[in-house]
Amino acid sequence: MTIQTIGIIGSGNLGTRIGLQAAISGYAVSMYDLDERSLTRSMGSMKKLLSHLTSTRQITEEMGVQAMDKILFSQYLNLALQNVDLISESVVEDAAIKTRVWKEIGELAPSHTIFTTNTSYLLPSQFAEVSGRPEKFCAFHFHDVFYSRVVDIMPHPGTAQEVISLLENLGRKLNQVPILIKKEHSGYIFNTLLIAWIDAAGRLLTGEIAEVEAIDKSWMVNFGMSAGPFGILDNVGLDTAWQITSTRRNPASRAFAALLETYVHQGKLGTKSGEGFYTYPNPSYKHPDFLK
Amino acid sequence: MTIQTIGIIGSGNLGTRIGLQAAISGYAVSMYDLDERSLTRSMGSMKKLLSHLTSTRQITEEMGVQAMDKILFSQYLNLALQNVDLISESVVEDAAIKTRVWKEIGELAPSHTIFTTNTSYLLPSQFAEVSGRPEKFCAFHFHDVFYSRVVDIMPHPGTAQEVISLLENLGRKLNQVPILIKKEHSGYIFNTLLIAWIDAAGRLLTGEIAEVEAIDKSWMVNFGMSAGPFGILDNVGLDTAWQITSTRRNPASRAFAALLETYVHQGKLGTKSGEGFYTYPNPSYKHPDFLK
Repeated sequence: MTIQTIGIIGSGNLGTRIGLQAAISGYAVSMYDLDERSLTRSMGSMKKLLSHLTSTRQITEEMGVQAMDKILFSQYLNLALQNVDLISESVVEDAAIKTRVWKEIGELAPSHTIFTTNTSYLLPSQFAEVSGRPEKFCAFHFHDVFYSRVVDIMPHPGTAQEVISLLENLGRKLNQVPILIKKEHSGYIFNTLLIAWIDAAGRLLTGEIAEVEAIDKSWMVNFGMSAGPFGILDNVGLDTAWQITSTRRNPASRAFAALLETYVHQGKLGTKSGEGFYTYPNPSYKHPDFLK
Repeated sequence: MTIQTIGIIGSGNLGTRIGLQAAISGYAVSMYDLDERSLTRSMGSMKKLLSHLTSTRQITEEMGVQAMDKILFSQYLNLALQNVDLISESVVEDAAIKTRVWKEIGELAPSHTIFTTNTSYLLPSQFAEVSGRPEKFCAFHFHDVFYSRVVDIMPHPGTAQEVISLLENLGRKLNQVPILIKKEHSGYIFNTLLIAWIDAAGRLLTGEIAEVEAIDKSWMVNFGMSAGPFGILDNVGLDTAWQITSTRRNPASRAFAALLETYVHQGKLGTKSGEGFYTYPNPSYKHPDFLK
């Protein structure tokens, strides 16, 4: 089958980016959100993203205009689902809400439509059955769409092989690097590596082995990366990092979660709040003499 | 005090690099090894390194000639230790051997000489007392000197503050980024982060969650790094990785150690043997279309 129309369920940050990239790649797009204000914000965000993409010459202005013309915004699910060949769901990361949404989608979507969830930590098998078409159900997980161009394809045991192949092709058409996960695994690959790495950095800090800057420098110089674990954490957001770390049980992670909590309670959330492990907009780790 | 002469104990790969950089930075250098052939190899390696540094215009040919003139090679410890202001010890990573060496150095070195060990996983407190001058004893750990320009400064509880400050200055003069470790910690910072990261990658592989290439891609695209964990492992050497991983006790690490063992037993040691997780000299992860 050929994908022509993509339905985006949930018009938050990532849904907006996926929808915009799909339109830029030439697909017709239905953006659905039950909250009209979210749809309005989504449209505004798309215009900002397009202006960034055109100013950095990644696309022409004409391509941006054409992309916007391909997007339908709707707060009516049955309208949004008409004629869609594939659905990408990015509603809030809550299993009960996603279950309700997938039940409803399963009842309303055309029978040929492929179902994908953009969940970060939940598993496709949690929603495959309730959707009514487990063989067409797969996780299709975007990282950031425009900056980190990775899309994870994570089937559950009942996903059809042809759906996996179709998603690999679609991922490339959406200008992403498709990464196949062979078995369901919470956090896919990148977050599994990232969390282990950040956990180790947290242990060094709470164990008073070294300071934030020393830990970041050590990684940055060795691997030529432009940030170390704490610079990355500031970008992730310390509130998000705290949420993730606080689910972990070993004593060292708990100590780091407790430290993150003190930051969050002081309103230090990282880049977005102007302060985290570093202060912004000019964090010391970006200074030219940081690695001297 | 001012450092003018540096004694390098052990003329293996890293001792050779430290000695050469010290001479390039203007210090007089005594290279000691009890094995004359090792000293001969060291001299040859230095010449190769200098030819690389001059051909890449990091130093002039004249600087290279001047550097070689500053280096004395000796297989007599008492001769090598005459007039040295600081010692950098890079003998084999064996606590019994290092203990014997430090006892001997402590008896022969001038009384003002500062003592540093380049150990990778042992702790300075294991040798501080036997050296006879714990307050002057500190770990001063180089990574690669020319490519990864990091030097870790890891005192034990008895190291004098002035020795720490002196080593920070010396690290910069040796063209390194000095990283202060506040408390003794096996593996310093970088190896702690690296091992946690590689451990997580190993779990994903042995748990059959994803293939080597998928795991590496995910990291490379997200962080713009030129290699992922398995590309890095091939560079580290699978024999070294196996040695480190096999000391770990959790079941997932043991499974990965068992996998590494099968590679090592087949002679697949990574880059240096021509095969590891990738094949060399043209591993797929360096192909231009790997991230497509």
